[in-house]
Amino acid sequence: MELFFYWFDHLGVAVFAISGTLLAFRKNMDGFGVIVLASVTAIGGGTTRDLILDLPVFWAHDPTYLYTIAVAAVGTIIWLRFRDYIHQKTLAIADAIGLAFFTVMGAQKALEAGFPPLICVVMGTITACFGGMLRDVLARDVPMVLKGELYATTCLVGASVYVFIAPYNALLALLVGGFVTLLLRLGAIRWQWHLPVFHEHGDSR
Amino acid sequence: MELFFYWFDHLGVAVFAISGTLLAFRKNMDGFGVIVLASVTAIGGGTTRDLILDLPVFWAHDPTYLYTIAVAAVGTIIWLRFRDYIHQKTLAIADAIGLAFFTVMGAQKALEAGFPPLICVVMGTITACFGGMLRDVLARDVPMVLKGELYATTCLVGASVYVFIAPYNALLALLVGGFVTLLLRLGAIRWQWHLPVFHEHGDSR
Amino acid sequence: MELFFYWFDHLGVAVFAISGTLLAFRKNMDGFGVIVLASVTAIGGGTTRDLILDLPVFWAHDPTYLYTIAVAAVGTIIWLRFRDYIHQKTLAIADAIGLAFFTVMGAQKALEAGFPPLICVVMGTITACFGGMLRDVLARDVPMVLKGELYATTCLVGASVYVFIAPYNALLALLVGGFVTLLLRLGAIRWQWHLPVFHEHGDSR
Repeated sequence: MELFFYWFDHLGVAVFAISGTLLAFRKNMDGFGVIVLASVTAIGGGTTRDLILDLPVFWAHDPTYLYTIAVAAVGTIIWLRFRDYIHQKTLAIADAIGLAFFTVMGAQKALEAGFPPLICVVMGTITACFGGMLRDVLARDVPMVLKGELYATTCLVGASVYVFIAPYNALLALLVGGFVTLLLRLGAIRWQWHLPVFHEHGDSR
Repeated sequence: MELFFYWFDHLGVAVFAISGTLLAFRKNMDGFGVIVLASVTAIGGGTTRDLILDLPVFWAHDPTYLYTIAVAAVGTIIWLRFRDYIHQKTLAIADAIGLAFFTVMGAQKALEAGFPPLICVVMGTITACFGGMLRDVLARDVPMVLKGELYATTCLVGASVYVFIAPYNALLALLVGGFVTLLLRLGAIRWQWHLPVFHEHGDSR
Repeated sequence: MELFFYWFDHLGVAVFAISGTLLAFRKNMDGFGVIVLASVTAIGGGTTRDLILDLPVFWAHDPTYLYTIAVAAVGTIIWLRFRDYIHQKTLAIADAIGLAFFTVMGAQKALEAGFPPLICVVMGTITACFGGMLRDVLARDVPMVLKGELYATTCLVGASVYVFIAPYNALLALLVGGFVTLLLRLGAIRWQWHLPVFHEHGDSR
């Protein structure tokens, strides 16, 4: 089980590293800019979670996460050499998968460390959203999490589902919570669901 | 006394959450963007302080802070439904009150943990200014703290006053330090006091 | 030896504070904006390193670092009163010297705390690059680390050299690692070396 979580975590890191690489590519960054942006996206959320919960930062004692990022980033670059352009959609889907993984893994880590349920839900959301937020801030994009269609809301719902099911069955909670997050996010992209936007004149559309 | 500080802290969180909500509103963010910006503004400074001082992050073990943020943000949104627009000034005044609270509470927490006076002054300033700085970075505004009229300087003065009086009377220090911060900030807004601005040609105006 | 490292650290803080002050100056910030930007540049990287490695933040218990920053920032401002403008180059060279100091000092601190070599290399890079990255984000510039000529790559190489030599001779490692970083960075500025930039159409130039 422990090992299973470990691979889940690496998978999440890999897809977020790909998402960071794709954005760096779109922004015409150099080779190292790609690595920085891939790393920040992949481990920024988990690092923030570990700092706030006062747990050892997950990658500081286990360099294999950095290898995962390097492999994912270099793999993406090589793959891009044989394809001519990147669909905006590919970026959004890689992001959605990473979001689902990180939401449940973040909530799981907080729950395991004995934090209250609401904090676990928030930690799932932070794990999933902060990496992408830091990525967007560094790349000087409008953070998706602030404008995006149900971006952070999907994490909040997915993490809540996880925290609700976890006391009964940890693996089931992981799968259901993850799928809820993924489906909500993909649905939000596909049909452009969004929360009401608040305008200065007070009317929400 | 302990309890008094606790409510002070919540009051500071509430006014900063309002300030974050108002900016999110001005930037036409969606419902969750509002919550993210309100939270970052309200707890970003205190979180930074607790991480640097290696204390437990204040809201990680006490979810009531998050309820305070939610109530303040939702309350602000509801209030805005019945008013047509937001005065730029309202935003600045909510910010000034939060600034005063956070300055003295931040310095107090560092002092209680036994840090040297200068570090306590800096921690008061960080507690008060970092939330708003993160808010402005996320919302892609010029950080007030870098351009604003005596913004961080007021915190520095207020925290110094607090640290100076605190050994004699903790409550008095809190009140005087807080009022000094608030009055300086309101005065700076009202009469546009500012420190010399440095220009590339070397003349300060 | 311990004392030697301590002065090295202060020297690094001073040159990065100068680099932050120069940027604040170019951006026409007020007196306190200068202090904030100088501080973030000077201690942002080391703070990030200490937080991730779960070590006590280096300046929280030793306020002399803050005095160093204040002296460096005020000294720079006074110096600028007698000179009419700032060479873009001066900024880049101050930055390069700070980069070299921080790279080896960051790797050294991680190595001393018993972290694996790869993590030490990354920590050297974070110590050197994160302060400048935060500076650029706050000043709303494109982070040098993402666009710059071999910016972070020089730290990576310098820190690797340090980690490789350190088991044999700590002081030699410090000097060689630092010089490699400095020379690579100055060479990169002088001859505009850069890593291949990746373009959306897949051709790297």
